[in-house]
Amino acid sequence: MRAQLGTPFDAFDDGDKLKEECGVFGVIGVADAANFVALGLHALQHRGQEAGGIVSYDPVQGFNSARRFGYVRDNFTKADVMSTLPGELAIGHVRYSTAGSKGATAIRDVQPFFGEFSMGGAAIAHNGNLTNAAALRKELIERGSIFQSSSDSECIIHLMARSIQTNISERIKDALRRVEGAFSVVAMTRTKLIGVRDAHGVRPLVLGRVGDSGWALSSETCGLDIIGAEFVREIEPGEMVVIEGNKVLSTRPFTPAPSRFCIFEQVYFSRPDSILGGRSVYETRRQIGVELAKESPVDADLVCPVPDSGTPAAIGFSQESGIPYAMGIIRNQYMGRTFIEPTESIRNMGVRLKLNVNRALIKGKRVILVDDSVVRGTTSRKIKDMILEAGAAEVHFRIASPPTAWPCFYGVDTPERSKLLAATMTEDEMRDWIGVDSLKFISLDGLYRAAGVEAGRDPKAPKFCDACFSGEYPITPSDKIAEGFEMKAAE
Amino acid sequence: MRAQLGTPFDAFDDGDKLKEECGVFGVIGVADAANFVALGLHALQHRGQEAGGIVSYDPVQGFNSARRFGYVRDNFTKADVMSTLPGELAIGHVRYSTAGSKGATAIRDVQPFFGEFSMGGAAIAHNGNLTNAAALRKELIERGSIFQSSSDSECIIHLMARSIQTNISERIKDALRRVEGAFSVVAMTRTKLIGVRDAHGVRPLVLGRVGDSGWALSSETCGLDIIGAEFVREIEPGEMVVIEGNKVLSTRPFTPAPSRFCIFEQVYFSRPDSILGGRSVYETRRQIGVELAKESPVDADLVCPVPDSGTPAAIGFSQESGIPYAMGIIRNQYMGRTFIEPTESIRNMGVRLKLNVNRALIKGKRVILVDDSVVRGTTSRKIKDMILEAGAAEVHFRIASPPTAWPCFYGVDTPERSKLLAATMTEDEMRDWIGVDSLKFISLDGLYRAAGVEAGRDPKAPKFCDACFSGEYPITPSDKIAEGFEMKAAE
Amino acid sequence: MRAQLGTPFDAFDDGDKLKEECGVFGVIGVADAANFVALGLHALQHRGQEAGGIVSYDPVQGFNSARRFGYVRDNFTKADVMSTLPGELAIGHVRYSTAGSKGATAIRDVQPFFGEFSMGGAAIAHNGNLTNAAALRKELIERGSIFQSSSDSECIIHLMARSIQTNISERIKDALRRVEGAFSVVAMTRTKLIGVRDAHGVRPLVLGRVGDSGWALSSETCGLDIIGAEFVREIEPGEMVVIEGNKVLSTRPFTPAPSRFCIFEQVYFSRPDSILGGRSVYETRRQIGVELAKESPVDADLVCPVPDSGTPAAIGFSQESGIPYAMGIIRNQYMGRTFIEPTESIRNMGVRLKLNVNRALIKGKRVILVDDSVVRGTTSRKIKDMILEAGAAEVHFRIASPPTAWPCFYGVDTPERSKLLAATMTEDEMRDWIGVDSLKFISLDGLYRAAGVEAGRDPKAPKFCDACFSGEYPITPSDKIAEGFEMKAAE
Amino acid sequence: MRAQLGTPFDAFDDGDKLKEECGVFGVIGVADAANFVALGLHALQHRGQEAGGIVSYDPVQGFNSARRFGYVRDNFTKADVMSTLPGELAIGHVRYSTAGSKGATAIRDVQPFFGEFSMGGAAIAHNGNLTNAAALRKELIERGSIFQSSSDSECIIHLMARSIQTNISERIKDALRRVEGAFSVVAMTRTKLIGVRDAHGVRPLVLGRVGDSGWALSSETCGLDIIGAEFVREIEPGEMVVIEGNKVLSTRPFTPAPSRFCIFEQVYFSRPDSILGGRSVYETRRQIGVELAKESPVDADLVCPVPDSGTPAAIGFSQESGIPYAMGIIRNQYMGRTFIEPTESIRNMGVRLKLNVNRALIKGKRVILVDDSVVRGTTSRKIKDMILEAGAAEVHFRIASPPTAWPCFYGVDTPERSKLLAATMTEDEMRDWIGVDSLKFISLDGLYRAAGVEAGRDPKAPKFCDACFSGEYPITPSDKIAEGFEMKAAE
Repeated sequence: MRAQLGTPFDAFDDGDKLKEECGVFGVIGVADAANFVALGLHALQHRGQEAGGIVSYDPVQGFNSARRFGYVRDNFTKADVMSTLPGELAIGHVRYSTAGSKGATAIRDVQPFFGEFSMGGAAIAHNGNLTNAAALRKELIERGSIFQSSSDSECIIHLMARSIQTNISERIKDALRRVEGAFSVVAMTRTKLIGVRDAHGVRPLVLGRVGDSGWALSSETCGLDIIGAEFVREIEPGEMVVIEGNKVLSTRPFTPAPSRFCIFEQVYFSRPDSILGGRSVYETRRQIGVELAKESPVDADLVCPVPDSGTPAAIGFSQESGIPYAMGIIRNQYMGRTFIEPTESIRNMGVRLKLNVNRALIKGKRVILVDDSVVRGTTSRKIKDMILEAGAAEVHFRIASPPTAWPCFYGVDTPERSKLLAATMTEDEMRDWIGVDSLKFISLDGLYRAAGVEAGRDPKAPKFCDACFSGEYPITPSDKIAEGFEMKAAE
Repeated sequence: MRAQLGTPFDAFDDGDKLKEECGVFGVIGVADAANFVALGLHALQHRGQEAGGIVSYDPVQGFNSARRFGYVRDNFTKADVMSTLPGELAIGHVRYSTAGSKGATAIRDVQPFFGEFSMGGAAIAHNGNLTNAAALRKELIERGSIFQSSSDSECIIHLMARSIQTNISERIKDALRRVEGAFSVVAMTRTKLIGVRDAHGVRPLVLGRVGDSGWALSSETCGLDIIGAEFVREIEPGEMVVIEGNKVLSTRPFTPAPSRFCIFEQVYFSRPDSILGGRSVYETRRQIGVELAKESPVDADLVCPVPDSGTPAAIGFSQESGIPYAMGIIRNQYMGRTFIEPTESIRNMGVRLKLNVNRALIKGKRVILVDDSVVRGTTSRKIKDMILEAGAAEVHFRIASPPTAWPCFYGVDTPERSKLLAATMTEDEMRDWIGVDSLKFISLDGLYRAAGVEAGRDPKAPKFCDACFSGEYPITPSDKIAEGFEMKAAE
Repeated sequence: MRAQLGTPFDAFDDGDKLKEECGVFGVIGVADAANFVALGLHALQHRGQEAGGIVSYDPVQGFNSARRFGYVRDNFTKADVMSTLPGELAIGHVRYSTAGSKGATAIRDVQPFFGEFSMGGAAIAHNGNLTNAAALRKELIERGSIFQSSSDSECIIHLMARSIQTNISERIKDALRRVEGAFSVVAMTRTKLIGVRDAHGVRPLVLGRVGDSGWALSSETCGLDIIGAEFVREIEPGEMVVIEGNKVLSTRPFTPAPSRFCIFEQVYFSRPDSILGGRSVYETRRQIGVELAKESPVDADLVCPVPDSGTPAAIGFSQESGIPYAMGIIRNQYMGRTFIEPTESIRNMGVRLKLNVNRALIKGKRVILVDDSVVRGTTSRKIKDMILEAGAAEVHFRIASPPTAWPCFYGVDTPERSKLLAATMTEDEMRDWIGVDSLKFISLDGLYRAAGVEAGRDPKAPKFCDACFSGEYPITPSDKIAEGFEMKAAE
Repeated sequence: MRAQLGTPFDAFDDGDKLKEECGVFGVIGVADAANFVALGLHALQHRGQEAGGIVSYDPVQGFNSARRFGYVRDNFTKADVMSTLPGELAIGHVRYSTAGSKGATAIRDVQPFFGEFSMGGAAIAHNGNLTNAAALRKELIERGSIFQSSSDSECIIHLMARSIQTNISERIKDALRRVEGAFSVVAMTRTKLIGVRDAHGVRPLVLGRVGDSGWALSSETCGLDIIGAEFVREIEPGEMVVIEGNKVLSTRPFTPAPSRFCIFEQVYFSRPDSILGGRSVYETRRQIGVELAKESPVDADLVCPVPDSGTPAAIGFSQESGIPYAMGIIRNQYMGRTFIEPTESIRNMGVRLKLNVNRALIKGKRVILVDDSVVRGTTSRKIKDMILEAGAAEVHFRIASPPTAWPCFYGVDTPERSKLLAATMTEDEMRDWIGVDSLKFISLDGLYRAAGVEAGRDPKAPKFCDACFSGEYPITPSDKIAEGFEMKAAE
């Protein structure tokens, strides 16, 4: 017997992954819009597995909503749920539970949020994070607003309720001008589908054409593919589109700001078949592997991905280095992503059951493992244990992102800074702590090149938000600073 | 808009896959044996996703059982289920529903089956198929046996009940000598764990050591890995092992017969990280890709697997041909295998939601698609549609198994012969029907070589059961012949 | 065969019963207060069977709530629910769904409602009906409040949120001074349990002592009995009690008004073992039967109640008349009250399965049936059919309330006026329409006498609210008048 | 505060009630027969609340079954269950769990049992108890039968399977001639509905006409009433009826024996609206109260039933004695019978929540409480506590059955003899132990008179089975004697 039940797999926590918090989707102009939204959310499930919600509008039956814990496929495929969501206009949301409360009452935190105003109802779904939500919430409560959830996103709907504008689109603008942070918002009134991205365009949002009559908004293009919609274009940073009938009206409600799209969407969050900036995410990730092989070559017998997120970079690394690509670690396909469940015990169980080493293949080999990122380092350590226990001669880690040394405040769940391995150790110290023969991260410049910025990162005007690597936050995290978070000292 | 909702994905049926019907697992000599069985069954879930069952024995609480529809992870991880299964001895079963009845009463068909005999109780779980079950069942009913299920495997327990032997192991021998067909059986009494393979050894079964005190039996070695058990050896064709305390007693109850292990286990059924005949299944599959590239090369830009089962052969094809490997089709990881659900409507839904083309990557490329097999050909046709619709310049199919022209009667779910594409068409006709630029299957000799038989297939004494390709059935399917099935004419 | 399946029972609708809408309960000063609330709500289940909710407060875990459709016994007895409701302070609510929306989203309408204010949270549960809620709601939405439910009671919590008072008790006063209508309210802050009755005291509310340290508020005394609490006194019309620690502080926040307790609580709503005005409700109802026998005697063989609500009056009728009491109609005890479920189809099913005639007893007899009320008359007609079909020689109806000719706007679900049998027919016409040998209602004076007002009803200053019989509404139903309801013309 | 939560109500166990174990129902010759069976079982729910099952037969879909824990109304009213039970022929069963196993596997014990024989399938449902089942089971297992349940009733189906008769009706006769005990059996083949009562006719079974084309068999006439069927006649002791098409064939397969119908059906088990021996059960029970008042008069203010089973006898007692009848104890109508749930903790909870004293009525009064029986005496003691705590001046118990001093072995769940209060105490000792002012049981002669045997009980040839009172067992309980049970010594 090689291992006690419970070790070494039982502590594969998710500290080595950052987690996207949300995906949003909306459809207008097609019958049974909620069914399309369900399909779109299913395609966006990797952005949030804990819960999902859909709101639809039908002229006869008004606004209806359904919110459920669990996967889209387990909830929004059932006739008894979908039949309650009639109409040609619907929006939806999938979420991972980080900000909101947990436990018995948390269904209240599942979006979309709905509000009834004197000129009619509106629903709103939000991907991102508001950096001044705590201050806004306090102010709203003092003025008589009653919050129904612990979600900061609810501020938007209360700000809308208190706007003096007489149409809902204008109220959304009013509300979003008051909030700070990163957001891609999909909203709906009785007749309009609305999409907005914050001025920096931190989170993605794309527009698609559904048949001749309809339109869709989706966090990623893979959400358009699943319903057979045509990808039209990305919503631009700072842009608001209001779709009604066959018209898409574009406005720019915010003060212009430099574009700072989240570079971690390229590394890990987005699906490999999505298109970002005109390129396949898969191709960008493969290119990261190519850059990594150039920057940090090593002599070995096999290049193996840590499945599944390390796969494209491992393919690129193999192609650049000439070292054969192999499936050295097999993922049990009956699990979802490791970080699905929010409670500690299930998460542990999840990881213990997730991966197996291809023992007969690995034995006696020098193995390069390619993973997307290192967060706490605990998973890396356990994977190394698995590989060595199976008889590998050498283990080399190559990481498809720079060291993650700073928390994200823009809609990604990260541990506090002191728990990030790279915040407290050098690369060599990390290598020794994980216990591998070598450990190399791609450089920030290499990552920019792989993402299509041939010149690498311009420190004066970086093209992406890379705060988790650089500590340079494009939007001041004011709530967090009020709580005591210390920004990187200016150099 | 490129496609109507519902097309082209909505008819991706499972006709292009053969389905393994079962996995079996047993553990003796460790506390909470049922928990180990649950983990083992989880690792064997690919062998049967419809339902699972566990029986355990505890000296105080006697035999207990739990049988559930759905995944192991959804049922046998819950405290309220597992707490009802105490003891240091347990066996389990996962199944795909083909032979038994479907619908409301089918839980009766979920194994293990349990019988109470005058000398005590016994439970039995069976992977394979009995080719004389219909005749046996008729005879048993006439003699007063009452069948509780529609499963043919229940014959075994009734034959045991009528045996005049005074201990259960002998009764199992008596019963299994009466049945014909392919079987790997795991059984238990109050004190013994028992494993048996039919004389030809068609279905796999392996023995593992659990810590210092326990033993495990599993359909595949991946079931041992998940619980940290050490792989000891395969149970041999025609062997029966009776494990009690620390002793493993081996006997040979059946007339010796040539070994004819199912070659489709190598091609598709077994997990790539399992070990068969001393080799990684992954490696055998990669080698199939190598042989295929040698036999049927073609000029192209990308080699793409049809995920996930085509992946190892695609890697081998790329390595042999030098054409870059790429993930041209992305599988939604929140689905299981396509053939999970037994009802038509859900199966259709399953496939529509399962795959997406990496459009930005495929556009304008000449693509080689590597898949494991073609059964009805319907899925291949739809995948081709998807790839062309995404703008591929050429589509070439390479299949990691020979044409599937004959049904399996040994525990695999296959359509009737007339529905098998290769039973009615030549390779060229299939290519035209599917509508691709080229279509090539690996030769039977090539497959044998990849599986380690360097000399290729010896028509006088083939090392494997390859009836689905060759029409040569090592065990006469007597029930089927009685129903009118026509064997291949002798040449 | 005497009847087709489906007739004559299948249309036993509930038009012949008025339905109480709510019961409220609260406890302070005992460990696991929510368990006591669950017991109290179970005892008050007759006041609302559709749904229930409990909010509790614990210094460590804050406010928690659980809201469920269905019976208290099916939801608030489970460990997984009750363990989420810790603390020594809790309030709860049971409801019948009349005002709020129905269907998928209606769980939002289940009370208690909770609001977080700048000085802390508060929860509130309401029995009764606000007659100016529509106007208030419109005004609040215009000022930026977001309603989460379709329940008019939610107005109270929004009025509280907008109050400028700095403690919650004062905010409750502010809010309740703005509302019109009938209400008994139970509310809680982090430290206080609060009870209020409207100025007329239309709905009941009583105070109880729980052990040495705790207090309870309950709609009826039967809620105190179940937890072994001592009945202290009724909360008085217009009184507000604020309970903190061992102190009960009483104030009178509203303009004084004459007491007008709902007389239908005496006739039907309250449980027979509750105490109202110092007397057992059972005794009052028995006395109604005595008065009825004096007012409208008839020669017959048996006096039978329409179970179960007609039972006490039938006993009284039998005792006064000397005609033997008998159980001529048997209620299936596995059903609840007929009007449990809010959807038409289930309600119909409910009634078809509910009652059976004691055929062998009834055959050839002259039967007096005593029922509590006649609303639409449809049930009476079907009961008459049942009795005659069983062979009764004569059927005489005696009704323990006067003709119900006006809708209630104070927390009781009544059909619109045109559907009330007594609004459109004389007593003789009703007798003929129902098809019985005689039909007599108790007089309003007789009812007052039975309820302890020896002098009968004083038209100038009636002691009770009897609007449903008299059309004299003590509180102007302003929302309804705005919708077009016509009050009785002044005489 | 009068009582701690948990006392005195929390130990109201069910030791004071005997429990009927089963009800059976069958229908032939009407569309959707299973719906009629569901209604019939609902009317028979008082005979068994733990679980229910229905088997139906349809020429196209064959035999189908559904078995569920819980009430009929909660399971067999749902479309997804009922749609799986097509056909014009169906039988069903409700049960209380006493003999069979409990816990996770017990659904196997829920009847009807089904067997497939060489000449076709058959299903069988059994009310009663076989007194030689243990011996039969042992013999059958030795001969190779495999039992699927722990229910003794399964012997019948195995005996049928081993019969050499060539039609199923004859096989049923064969099987029932081998069993000893009390039984009313309803069975079905593909074309026939079959009913049988044991030679003594211990358990009830009646025949009804359903419309022009159909027939029904039911444990009681109330099952016929609910579906509008006409009561034709009782099946006679020792009679077997085979119903096919429009014909009812009657035979007498057993050695004739004196009729010994269970007298406790009259006292407690049967529903008051059922007809037994041509009389309403209600009327017999009322007459018991009359006899009791003659035998054991006492001066008092009120006669109160212990609800609900004591009600008819209390009415009779009041009518004979002239002491006013009153509802002194109110049952919470949202509970079922106390003995619903088989686990101790829920049972306790059940009783605590069940009854409340009508305090304002009882205070200062001398109260006669009429109950149906005393088993362990524990409930009586707690009811006395409740009544005294509410201020009653005197408490007198009058019991509508003789002292229960012997266990029943014919299908009723009774405690072992040592736990029966009357087996260890005289009437005076019981009075003191319970702690009431007087306690009187009806005499056995009085009970016979009330049941229509004017001459009282003939000790040489009693008309009823009264073993629980007299210790005279008409059928030898051979399994129990083998286990050590001592019969009453011959006098």
